[in-house]
Amino acid sequence: MTAPTAPADLSRLCLHTITTKPWAIETAAAKFASAGVKGITVWRDTLVGRDIPATGRMLRDHGLSVVSLCRGGFFPAATPRDRAQALDDNRRAIAEAHALGAPQVVLVCGALPGQSLPESRKQIAEGIAALLPECQSSGVRLAIEPLHPMYADSRSAVNTLGQANDMAESLNSPHVGVAVDVYHLWWDPTLEREIARCGRLGALFAFHMSDWRTPTVDFLNDRGLMGEGCIPIGQIRSWVESAGFTGFHEVEIFSNRLWATDQDVFLGNIVQAYLAHG
Amino acid sequence: MTAPTAPADLSRLCLHTITTKPWAIETAAAKFASAGVKGITVWRDTLVGRDIPATGRMLRDHGLSVVSLCRGGFFPAATPRDRAQALDDNRRAIAEAHALGAPQVVLVCGALPGQSLPESRKQIAEGIAALLPECQSSGVRLAIEPLHPMYADSRSAVNTLGQANDMAESLNSPHVGVAVDVYHLWWDPTLEREIARCGRLGALFAFHMSDWRTPTVDFLNDRGLMGEGCIPIGQIRSWVESAGFTGFHEVEIFSNRLWATDQDVFLGNIVQAYLAHG
Repeated sequence: MTAPTAPADLSRLCLHTITTKPWAIETAAAKFASAGVKGITVWRDTLVGRDIPATGRMLRDHGLSVVSLCRGGFFPAATPRDRAQALDDNRRAIAEAHALGAPQVVLVCGALPGQSLPESRKQIAEGIAALLPECQSSGVRLAIEPLHPMYADSRSAVNTLGQANDMAESLNSPHVGVAVDVYHLWWDPTLEREIARCGRLGALFAFHMSDWRTPTVDFLNDRGLMGEGCIPIGQIRSWVESAGFTGFHEVEIFSNRLWATDQDVFLGNIVQAYLAHG
Repeated sequence: MTAPTAPADLSRLCLHTITTKPWAIETAAAKFASAGVKGITVWRDTLVGRDIPATGRMLRDHGLSVVSLCRGGFFPAATPRDRAQALDDNRRAIAEAHALGAPQVVLVCGALPGQSLPESRKQIAEGIAALLPECQSSGVRLAIEPLHPMYADSRSAVNTLGQANDMAESLNSPHVGVAVDVYHLWWDPTLEREIARCGRLGALFAFHMSDWRTPTVDFLNDRGLMGEGCIPIGQIRSWVESAGFTGFHEVEIFSNRLWATDQDVFLGNIVQAYLAHG
């Protein structure tokens, strides 16, 4: 494989607050900015108890672009009442994104063990469609994130970029697109083609990176820093950029191992890994 | 989802020796036969130190059909020498299958962390092609088993039934087909279509079942007994049968949890679970 050009600088580097989970959002914002990071994706747990518009101003005062709010979704549920509650939570997420100044909410779409995947996918599409009025009034977009098939039981019935593209195409709204995460999608033999299609649809809303370690020892929290694993991150980034994407490169790492380390050292390592392997 | 008809009896039930891993093959054969199981798939570790033709006769004397030998594969390697060694091991597997009286060898195709998936797939196809003379002379067939994408780093670069079908179609030999395992493939939105295609290709060589537990806590050894998880096993079996498959339903469960239980009780539970959820 021809090695793609590494990122030239940090101008498109964004970190998810969960990547440095031990830090409160105020700490993360100051540290990210000092390290030269230019974007931040905010996980909702960091906003609990905060004045959200003031938090958004704090982030921008640090020179950080607010890239996304994580996360909404989890639409499938066994009863109409539970599905309505899921919609209410998504409406709160859209309102939080609007208050924070985040242009989009990332969706982990959900799945229900024992409910068929086609039924869950139908409930997901219906759930997103029901949110479009709030998207239109607020301007906040929704990014469907296809999740790795190992999460098809309980976290997402949308497991390939092809499926996410199909859903975005079918919903046919400028407010609905896709988040491409290399961790979830790197194995897919149709990935290059579907990334190009996502670009043609105008649906490529976000690009997330981390790495896949061998062995991986935890289904949720053992992602690797870029370069620690086998994902051809630069190759996939080159496909995403060929598809017309000009947004941030978001580093989203869940790792019990890395969260247990000194987060200042880790932040420095992220910046170096991004420049070498991002 | 309409519930498909459950299996009527045990006439097509096959167990993998690894499902009751604590048992030696002689014990497994006697217990399986007593429980009414009609087929056995033999893992190569159980043959170490055995007279293989005599072991095959022992299995048949118990009234068991020898369904498959597990396993060959692991073709990708960094050097020509290592790839040649992998071929030698596969030739030994074919010879063992022939000696045992097993009509086919199941292939876990392999992957090499850090080598691109397209390169690994090329090495897999070349490796299988190199074995065709041995298949022709022995009559032993090779069944490509697409593995779940969570194994794409180090166990198989063939992760969907579509890819396995493509490879079988391209190799175009009556000795090369596919093993369909619900654990690896249940999440795939193209599964029904690709099972039908596999049947049209005459390539549907094997059908494996187990279940996906929520949560799954180990990447390799936390499979569930049929009915313990979320896989629509009967639905997938109905697709396989609609595609013309008339072979055995092979129960292949790797489970530290279940291996730690009384294997006689477990065997009884397998039979009941097969009749209820298989």
